[in-house]
Amino acid sequence: MRLKFTKMHGAGNDFVVLDGVRQQISLTTEQLRLLADRHFGVGCDQILLVEKAHDASADFRYRIFNADGGEVEQCGNGARCFVRFVHDQKLTNKAEIVVETHNGLIRPRLEADGRVVVNMGAPVFDAARIPFSGGTIEVMQPLVVADQTLMVSIVSMGNPHAVQVVDDVERAAVEVLGPLIEHHASFPKRVNAGFMQIMDRQHIRLRVYERGSGETLSCGTGACAAVVSGIRRGLLDSPVSVATHGGNLSIAWGGEETPVLMTGPAISVFSGEINL
Amino acid sequence: MRLKFTKMHGAGNDFVVLDGVRQQISLTTEQLRLLADRHFGVGCDQILLVEKAHDASADFRYRIFNADGGEVEQCGNGARCFVRFVHDQKLTNKAEIVVETHNGLIRPRLEADGRVVVNMGAPVFDAARIPFSGGTIEVMQPLVVADQTLMVSIVSMGNPHAVQVVDDVERAAVEVLGPLIEHHASFPKRVNAGFMQIMDRQHIRLRVYERGSGETLSCGTGACAAVVSGIRRGLLDSPVSVATHGGNLSIAWGGEETPVLMTGPAISVFSGEINL
Repeated sequence: MRLKFTKMHGAGNDFVVLDGVRQQISLTTEQLRLLADRHFGVGCDQILLVEKAHDASADFRYRIFNADGGEVEQCGNGARCFVRFVHDQKLTNKAEIVVETHNGLIRPRLEADGRVVVNMGAPVFDAARIPFSGGTIEVMQPLVVADQTLMVSIVSMGNPHAVQVVDDVERAAVEVLGPLIEHHASFPKRVNAGFMQIMDRQHIRLRVYERGSGETLSCGTGACAAVVSGIRRGLLDSPVSVATHGGNLSIAWGGEETPVLMTGPAISVFSGEINL
Repeated sequence: MRLKFTKMHGAGNDFVVLDGVRQQISLTTEQLRLLADRHFGVGCDQILLVEKAHDASADFRYRIFNADGGEVEQCGNGARCFVRFVHDQKLTNKAEIVVETHNGLIRPRLEADGRVVVNMGAPVFDAARIPFSGGTIEVMQPLVVADQTLMVSIVSMGNPHAVQVVDDVERAAVEVLGPLIEHHASFPKRVNAGFMQIMDRQHIRLRVYERGSGETLSCGTGACAAVVSGIRRGLLDSPVSVATHGGNLSIAWGGEETPVLMTGPAISVFSGEINL
């Protein structure tokens, strides 16, 4: 099968995007793995497959596959690339697009400056849903790791995060503490570890050690979790600009039950064709 | 500038190949780095630039750039991809091609089975040329690393190698010993560390910890160095099949002053276009 694709990234989180509207696409797990392989295939963090909607109220259906070929849920950086893709490919000219995902409908919006806004849902502080087995979730709580007591904020943005404030994010012991926090006994499904440096009330720098992946260039849900944590600690005011190694994201949150809005770049890097 | 490219690999060592014969190509160091970046560009170990020959006796000129944008010398895996590329692109139909490189003329040859044979030059055992400051080069010599005495064979294939025989290459302490051997005081310009398991007199398994890169999927000069070392130790007979994590290479050597011939695959993965 000869397949056309576009390689994109959103703040360094990179994707192979496939047009399943104008191409008939049916890929095996092996083919998905090969596509994602950085030496033997195209290479990416995830594969985005754009299809026709099944639901009449939606514009498109949007599926996400990890590099291991497994289908996964929401990804904020991917949703931005999806929106840029359907515009660049002239599959739609709507600014706000209704998209069927694995988790229900989402409505990402293309801004005039080319950035895309995605509703990332409301943060979850319920210990059972995170899941966290160390008691009720407080704004901050102690976590003992390698004989140190870290003060972390725990929140789920669909996936669990433990965020700490550090003095200098570039000198933070991300590689050492990341895996220890990830596997801490209080997180039955492990946790993503965030390290944020507060620059001022509307600017932070962030590094995230992602569950199962190690440190990544940019983690969308990690940026949301960090800003939500900083606002709850009284250190930040919405909206907050988050500088990551992959680029800048802007995170807005109205507090408690309201959804977190993430705005960020979506860049088309190159287009290609591959025989699978 | 809109640039057409082909992504290729030779035993997992991967390349962005550019046709500078039919495209006018002049890239800055920044553009080369971006092309090689696996998240923000196309992604590869090295960039191969095919140009018209300056020398009337040559068919093409061939330049190689590392991911940091610096121009480098010979690369056996790259030379194989180069040959497949000029055939696939119908830039020539000659089986043996005369190519101008940074190091002089080379004559790689396309075989009927699609594999490519490259003359990798004669191995060098002269301590000053390797360079090795620990005395005259013997067939094997002791190297003390982390309180262990390793028996290594030292040889240059244009770049220095220290090869040891191990019982089980998959269980070898490549990540631990590799950097210690690389930086051993007897190698003023550091060294590549090879770990080979002898399966029989014509088959080895090999892992190489490359100077400055860490363990790679496949190292062409490392395969040559391992086979030369095994033949000198009386353990192997030419030709030898070398299984690496990236694929299989076949290495032939007639002994002493004769050149080493490497035969291996060259695979075209996909083609694309990028704006730089």
